[in-house]
Amino acid sequence: MDRRSFLKTTGAVAAVAGTGALATPAIAQGRKEWKMVTTWPKNFPGLGVGAQRLADRITTATDGRVTVKLFAAGELVPAFESFDAVSNGTAEMYHAPDYYWQGKHPSFAFFTAVPLGFTAPEINAWIQFLGGQALWDELSGGFGVKPFLCGNTGVQMGGWFRKEINSLEDLKGLKFRMPGIGGEALRQLGVNVIALPGGEIFQALQSGAIDGTEWVGPLNDLAFGFYRIAKNYYYPGFHEPGSAICAGINASAFGELSKTDQFIVEQCCLADNEMMYAEFTAKNGQALDTLVSQHGVQLKKFPEDVFDGFAKASEEVVMKIGDYDDLAKRVRDSYLKTRADLSKWTQVAEQDYSNERTRSLGKL
Amino acid sequence: MDRRSFLKTTGAVAAVAGTGALATPAIAQGRKEWKMVTTWPKNFPGLGVGAQRLADRITTATDGRVTVKLFAAGELVPAFESFDAVSNGTAEMYHAPDYYWQGKHPSFAFFTAVPLGFTAPEINAWIQFLGGQALWDELSGGFGVKPFLCGNTGVQMGGWFRKEINSLEDLKGLKFRMPGIGGEALRQLGVNVIALPGGEIFQALQSGAIDGTEWVGPLNDLAFGFYRIAKNYYYPGFHEPGSAICAGINASAFGELSKTDQFIVEQCCLADNEMMYAEFTAKNGQALDTLVSQHGVQLKKFPEDVFDGFAKASEEVVMKIGDYDDLAKRVRDSYLKTRADLSKWTQVAEQDYSNERTRSLGKL
Repeated sequence: MDRRSFLKTTGAVAAVAGTGALATPAIAQGRKEWKMVTTWPKNFPGLGVGAQRLADRITTATDGRVTVKLFAAGELVPAFESFDAVSNGTAEMYHAPDYYWQGKHPSFAFFTAVPLGFTAPEINAWIQFLGGQALWDELSGGFGVKPFLCGNTGVQMGGWFRKEINSLEDLKGLKFRMPGIGGEALRQLGVNVIALPGGEIFQALQSGAIDGTEWVGPLNDLAFGFYRIAKNYYYPGFHEPGSAICAGINASAFGELSKTDQFIVEQCCLADNEMMYAEFTAKNGQALDTLVSQHGVQLKKFPEDVFDGFAKASEEVVMKIGDYDDLAKRVRDSYLKTRADLSKWTQVAEQDYSNERTRSLGKL
Repeated sequence: MDRRSFLKTTGAVAAVAGTGALATPAIAQGRKEWKMVTTWPKNFPGLGVGAQRLADRITTATDGRVTVKLFAAGELVPAFESFDAVSNGTAEMYHAPDYYWQGKHPSFAFFTAVPLGFTAPEINAWIQFLGGQALWDELSGGFGVKPFLCGNTGVQMGGWFRKEINSLEDLKGLKFRMPGIGGEALRQLGVNVIALPGGEIFQALQSGAIDGTEWVGPLNDLAFGFYRIAKNYYYPGFHEPGSAICAGINASAFGELSKTDQFIVEQCCLADNEMMYAEFTAKNGQALDTLVSQHGVQLKKFPEDVFDGFAKASEEVVMKIGDYDDLAKRVRDSYLKTRADLSKWTQVAEQDYSNERTRSLGKL
C-alpha cells in the first residue's frame, strides 16, 4: 500500500466532515466522544474492519465513557493528514500504519515494517519486551501522540507481474508500483517505480501504464481483481513481512482519561493487535485458494538471485536511515540487534517446525 | 509439560487454602472477588507470570469490580483439580492448558496443541475466525465452563537427550519423558515413555532413570538446568507447536457480570493471548543463546526419518481421537480441514519469507 492509495476518496467526502450525529460534544457525566480517523476506506477488509472493531471495543469496554466514532479515509480529514489531525487535536486517535509518516521522521518505518525485517510475532516481541515501545513513545511523543500496537497484516505478497521474473535483469526498466523503503530498494535495482493510489492500480495495469504491482495479500488483492490482467503472483514479499498498525492517540486527550479508562483503551488495542493478525491468517489462505483454483493465478516464488537483490538493496536503504539523527540511529540499532537475536529463535521454532511439517506431511 | 509436573507442590500448600485476605467475600457495591486457580507454580516464567498479569489486568480494567486473586498450583486446590474447581464453583476461573483435561474428553487436546498441528497464529485463526470457539464453547460448556484464549508458548523444543538421535532405531527402548498425544506417539515408536512431574525430572536425568526429557522451551528449560546432564538439545518439537493457554471461567459467575464487565474480561484475555506469545518470542532466543554460548549445549535438528516417524505416529493417534464420540469427530474434522487450509498460507507467507530471510542474509 502507499500514502496516495486513498487520497482519491478524500475530496468528495471531506465536505461532509463535522456534520454528523456527534457534532455536539456530549461531555455531560464525564463522557467523552472521540473521533478516530483512519487511512482506510470504510470496511476495507482486515484493516478498515479492524479500525471499526477497535472503535467499538473501546466504546463497549468503557461503557460509553469513551465513545469512539470512526471516520474513514477522507470523511473528516484527508487520509494522510490523519497523523497531523491527532497531533493537533482535530481528532483524538488514528488507526494507520506509522510508515505513512516517514516524511516527518524516517524512523516511523521501523514501527510498521522494514524490508527483510520483523514478522508479526517478532515486532510484537520487540515493541512489548525488548525496548521498542520506549523508542516509539519517544518518537511519537515528540508530536504529542501516544502509540499502541493495534493490528498486523502478517507477511504480505510480493506482487503481481504480467511476465515471469527469472532474474534481476528482468526487473530492469519494469514499471512497477511499490511504496516506501521497498520501492526505494527496487529503484536501486533499475525498476521504474511508480506511485499510484489503490483505486488507480487496476486501470494502470490494464492500460499497460504499469507492468505490475504489489498491494497487500490475497484477501485484499482478490477484491481488486488484479488477476484479470497479471497472472503471475509472486511470493514471498520482501518489503512488508508483518506490517504493524498503530493506534495513535492524542496525548492530552489520553491524559484526560481516568487511569482505568487509559488501561482499558490499551487492553482493547492489544486485543485487536492479536485479532487482526488472526483474521488475516484465517482468510488469506482461503482467498489464495480462490485465486489459484478459480482464477487461474500462477503462484510463483521469486528466484533466489532476485530475492538476494531485494535483500542487498533493502539493507543498504535501512542502514542509511540511521544517519538521519540520533534517534534514528538508536531505533535502527535496536532493530538490527533485535532482528539478529529473534531470528535465531524463529529459525529453530516456528520456521523449522513449519518446514518439517510441510516436508513430512506433504501437501495437506 | 504434563499433569503431574505440579502435583508435587500441591500437598504442602493446600492446607493454607481459604485462609487468605480474601476469605470474606466482599460483595458490597456489586464488587466481586474471583479466585483464579492455575496449574503453574507462582511466577513460573512465561506461564505463571502470564496468569498473574491476566489477574491484574482484569482487576485494573474493571476498576476492582472484579478483583481476581491468583492461587498458584496447590494453593487452593491441587493443580489438576483446577478444572473441577471452576466447574463446581470452588473457584471462578482457571489459567491452564486445556489438554490437561483430556481424561474428561479427548477433544480438549485440540484446544491446546496437537502434534504436527497448529502454530500460535494458526490456532488463533481457527478459534477466532474458523469455527473453533463454537466447538470449544460446546465442549467446555458441557462442564459449565466458558473458555477464552489467554496465552501461547509458541513452538516448543523437541527435548534433551544424553546421546545423539541418528535414526528411529536410536529411539527404541529409550527412557524418555513426554506427556500427552506426543508421548503416546513416542510409545508407538518403541520409546519407554515415562511420566514424571517437573520437579523430579532433573534428578531422574542425573540418576539415569531417564535418558532424556522434553519440557517447554529455552526460557523454561534453562531454569531447570537440564543442560548439566544432557547436552543434546533437539529441535523442532513435533508435539506442541503452539500451546494455547485457556482462561476457563465458571459460566454462572461469568453470567452474573454486567455485559460490560463480561466484555472487559474478554478483552483482557485477548490482550494477554498476544502478550504471552510476545514474551516467549522475545525471551526464548536470549535463553537459547545462553544455553549454547555459556553452557556448551549442542543444538541439533532431528534427522528427517526421525521426524517422519513422529509425524506418522502422531497422525494415527490424532485420527483415533475422532472415534470417541460425535463431538470429538466434529472437532477433529474441523481441525484437519483448517490445518490443510491454513498451512497453504503459512507456507507462502511466514514460512517462506523466514526461509528466504535466513538464506539471503545468512546468520545475523
